[in-house]
Amino acid sequence: MPTYKAPVADTLFILNDVLALARHNNLPGFADASADMLEAIAGEAARLAEEALFPLNRVGDQEGCTRHDDGTVTVPKGFKEAYDLYRAGGWIGLAVPEEFGGQRLPYVLHTAVGEYMSSANMSLMMYPGLTQGAIAAILVHGSDEQKAAYLPKMVEGTWTGTMNLTEPHCGTDLGLLRTRAVPQADGSYKISGQKIFISAGEHDMSENIVHLVLARIEGAPEGTKGISLFIVPKFLLADDGAPGARNAVSCGAIEHKMGIHGNATCVMNYDGATGFLIGPENKGLNAMFVMMNEARLGVGLQGLSIAEAAYQNAVAYARERLQGRSLSGAKNPEGKADPIIVHPDVRRALMTIKAWAEGGRAFTLWTALKSDIAHRSDDETARQAADDTLSLMTPILKGVLTDKGFEHAVMAQQIFGGHGYIEEHGMSQYVRDARIAMIYEGANGIQALDLVGRKLGLNGGRAVMALFKEIGDFCEENRDDETLSFFTRHLKKGLNDLQASTMWFMQNALAKPDNAGAGSTDYMHLFGLVVVGYMWARIAKAAQAGLAAGAGEREDFLRNKLVTGRFFMERLMPETALRKARIEAGAETMMELAAEAF
Amino acid sequence: MPTYKAPVADTLFILNDVLALARHNNLPGFADASADMLEAIAGEAARLAEEALFPLNRVGDQEGCTRHDDGTVTVPKGFKEAYDLYRAGGWIGLAVPEEFGGQRLPYVLHTAVGEYMSSANMSLMMYPGLTQGAIAAILVHGSDEQKAAYLPKMVEGTWTGTMNLTEPHCGTDLGLLRTRAVPQADGSYKISGQKIFISAGEHDMSENIVHLVLARIEGAPEGTKGISLFIVPKFLLADDGAPGARNAVSCGAIEHKMGIHGNATCVMNYDGATGFLIGPENKGLNAMFVMMNEARLGVGLQGLSIAEAAYQNAVAYARERLQGRSLSGAKNPEGKADPIIVHPDVRRALMTIKAWAEGGRAFTLWTALKSDIAHRSDDETARQAADDTLSLMTPILKGVLTDKGFEHAVMAQQIFGGHGYIEEHGMSQYVRDARIAMIYEGANGIQALDLVGRKLGLNGGRAVMALFKEIGDFCEENRDDETLSFFTRHLKKGLNDLQASTMWFMQNALAKPDNAGAGSTDYMHLFGLVVVGYMWARIAKAAQAGLAAGAGEREDFLRNKLVTGRFFMERLMPETALRKARIEAGAETMMELAAEAF
Repeated sequence: MPTYKAPVADTLFILNDVLALARHNNLPGFADASADMLEAIAGEAARLAEEALFPLNRVGDQEGCTRHDDGTVTVPKGFKEAYDLYRAGGWIGLAVPEEFGGQRLPYVLHTAVGEYMSSANMSLMMYPGLTQGAIAAILVHGSDEQKAAYLPKMVEGTWTGTMNLTEPHCGTDLGLLRTRAVPQADGSYKISGQKIFISAGEHDMSENIVHLVLARIEGAPEGTKGISLFIVPKFLLADDGAPGARNAVSCGAIEHKMGIHGNATCVMNYDGATGFLIGPENKGLNAMFVMMNEARLGVGLQGLSIAEAAYQNAVAYARERLQGRSLSGAKNPEGKADPIIVHPDVRRALMTIKAWAEGGRAFTLWTALKSDIAHRSDDETARQAADDTLSLMTPILKGVLTDKGFEHAVMAQQIFGGHGYIEEHGMSQYVRDARIAMIYEGANGIQALDLVGRKLGLNGGRAVMALFKEIGDFCEENRDDETLSFFTRHLKKGLNDLQASTMWFMQNALAKPDNAGAGSTDYMHLFGLVVVGYMWARIAKAAQAGLAAGAGEREDFLRNKLVTGRFFMERLMPETALRKARIEAGAETMMELAAEAF
Repeated sequence: MPTYKAPVADTLFILNDVLALARHNNLPGFADASADMLEAIAGEAARLAEEALFPLNRVGDQEGCTRHDDGTVTVPKGFKEAYDLYRAGGWIGLAVPEEFGGQRLPYVLHTAVGEYMSSANMSLMMYPGLTQGAIAAILVHGSDEQKAAYLPKMVEGTWTGTMNLTEPHCGTDLGLLRTRAVPQADGSYKISGQKIFISAGEHDMSENIVHLVLARIEGAPEGTKGISLFIVPKFLLADDGAPGARNAVSCGAIEHKMGIHGNATCVMNYDGATGFLIGPENKGLNAMFVMMNEARLGVGLQGLSIAEAAYQNAVAYARERLQGRSLSGAKNPEGKADPIIVHPDVRRALMTIKAWAEGGRAFTLWTALKSDIAHRSDDETARQAADDTLSLMTPILKGVLTDKGFEHAVMAQQIFGGHGYIEEHGMSQYVRDARIAMIYEGANGIQALDLVGRKLGLNGGRAVMALFKEIGDFCEENRDDETLSFFTRHLKKGLNDLQASTMWFMQNALAKPDNAGAGSTDYMHLFGLVVVGYMWARIAKAAQAGLAAGAGEREDFLRNKLVTGRFFMERLMPETALRKARIEAGAETMMELAAEAF
């Protein structure tokens, strides 16, 4: 039977020791997030994830969602009840301003507990997850009336939200989209077209569904400059604000997918549905990107979540499964064989996942804290610096953590041998679920292009230069420390590879942009290695400080951090050199073949 | 709709130009394999794969196999008819001696066409594939009576075969197995126990099923030294040799698997079934390894097969899907967007799969040819040298090509974006099917251990030294050639990394075997890179020779080989340095944590 325990101790260590959240208690909402409060909230979230969400994970996979002939959709058994617990616990609005019913606690805390929820049940968490994204877009771009009309219900979760971008012929290239919006006399629009791959598009868990829909207003310019964003509620709001008449939007089909069966991924048909413009005409992509950026962090988090859950199950199996003997002599001499966790190759896999999961958790929370600073600080310089880093990290976090999330779910499955391939142990589901995170909210190749083509050069490279300096300074400051010098030495090597590759792009990609495209995925992973390596160096510093201060019962925990960090540096950081070599190979060979020659 | 065309031209190029099969026409059976004959047979196989097997691939996935209450199992619709075509075409016995109904053509040809069949329908091909392995074991270890009784029917395919190793509590560690064999007065045995994960264990496609079963004779020594191999036919043979009384072996359940749904993976219950010892008592593992080695090459081939099939579909999609514009200016200016094959990051993925598939095909056929030489040559030195290489390459071929097969199916799926995640395009099936090949016939971690712990040191390292010399000599001989020096330079670097890592094991793993285990998977992949790199260097040499001789209509084909080979060298070979760095990191850090600390 699959197992899951939320890694609360690790979360708290990162928040308190590594990120020193207490130092940010001047930010609005942070004063309420004392160490005690963090522990209480994380503990509460852990309980909800473990006890309510996790037991439904396999059911959701096996049962899936059902579309009935009348177009209604039912979710797997138990999902509604679990969602109601989540909703009623106030988790959706944890970091939302109080005026819309939220608690305005730190977004970094919201992110921390979000990991547990997605580990426990990714498909179920997508319903409130999409709602979250829609809330973010309305918060930034909605009119006061729109905020008042929609946000409180969405924050309390009685209404959910969706994002409608993709059409059958266009996903990445939204400039091609065809869904039409025809202005009406009353200021509303009639929306017509078909959207596909709409997560949580239709279901029976909420009283209303607030679709955010990209469409083209009649006569708008071609391409991405003619796209607007609309609110299209499933039920139009009656005069009292309650759901009234059924709008002309319906679920035409549920997609047959490799995984995330518990989430209703719908074909949505808009047949002259009534929609309301949100934000300015033809600026829909800007508004969508607010949602998208929030969603990308959420998807990166899913990668981490699934890797962590799959890892925990692989560890449990590796401790129990008796097979073969340790190469260095029997470790379980009374038994007929040793548990497979004694085998180095099994540990190689477990340590790899562990090092990425713990480093990735720090990376995620560090980035989420940047979001808090960017949105809440009253110091403009701090705000801008945080926003720079956030914007730079978003594609890396999404692309790297989801690639790794899948890779590590596969590694964890491998530890089960044939038992991982049958559905009973749940490892297949982790692999199948994790796979989508590499694709949606911008396939990872698009994240890499966003990084190299847009984020890198923004404001003359201000963000990337600042980060290189921050990491370089850290290495400089700690290089004479006996324990930390091991970390800074490896980190510095990785940073050098990253800086050299960045320089290579500057020298070779401006005149030949294909050189940027050819190296983009390698660059994204190179950057991910360096940033997660930086996190490990900071974790090591915090662990060492904790040990020096007298760790008490945390001593083993902190010592293990140093071991896992060393593993990351020795085994995983050396990949930066390979990534650099690939980048420097350039585009020439890969562009040489004619399309017919493949 | 999924698509598949057998890569006949590439097969023939490798057989004729790279491996120069004609030079081996002194081997029995090779004289019949003229270039014309090869082309005719490959063409015939391609037709069968494309027209009969491939159209059933999705059906098999969707429909799966059904176990009925009486324990009988039916395969997906159409499978029996397609299997009958395969069977009747004589494909099972292609390389089997004539006295048992085979054609004794080269095993390398059998391997070449086997690729097409598994690309077209991996699940269906497993039925004759397992039969193949059972034939190999009976050929080597069976008595004359057993050969006469079973082989002709198995070669004609009217009876199929299985391998029964795994039990619920043991897979890798067969020493733990519990299935019992009790000697009977008539020389037969009563077999009792449960086997799991038995591919093709029960089905309705053949008149009889010949189970090869590992069991422990009463009173036999513990561990692997007490295991014997038995033939347990589903129907006992009557006096006239035809299937007679039903034996006490039955399918208890069909496993619910992530993929290969078209193959019946069964729990098999032996309830005092009548079995016949094959080979000597307590030497069952030796006999099983004959089967296993053959099967491992077959599984490596599956990795190649699925990667090739997934690649072809990704290429077709990348040529048709219009999305975005080329970074270097519109390539399809009349259209609303360019086909995505113009994007470097899409090409990165396609070129990676292509370079591994073509290099992997050469690797597979080169290894299969070693098998022919090892089994058919009358020159003992040549036989031994070929057997050395075959034995060394078996774990590498299995481990590397199946890891890559899965990785590349995932890459190909990624090119489809969201359309790859839904089942309609068939990309999910390739990923789900490819996954098993990393697990069965010895999980890839076991292949790596077999390589490092057994194959490397065999006969004082004779096999590995000979191969290093062969590759080193090739580099030396061709390093002054203008075209080839590029290839030999990269190959030499890879070889140096491989030699240094081999040396590192010799110096560090004898006293501390965990150092071997810790680096084993990296070493297997390092070796795979160098061998496939060697293949590419030989392909380049053959292509260059072909071009120099006046290539005619093959000119583009040969030029493209040089481009793809350059890609392999520039982008993929540099990974050898990373693998070496990981190996040299040793076992210390990864063995440090207590099992409870994970």
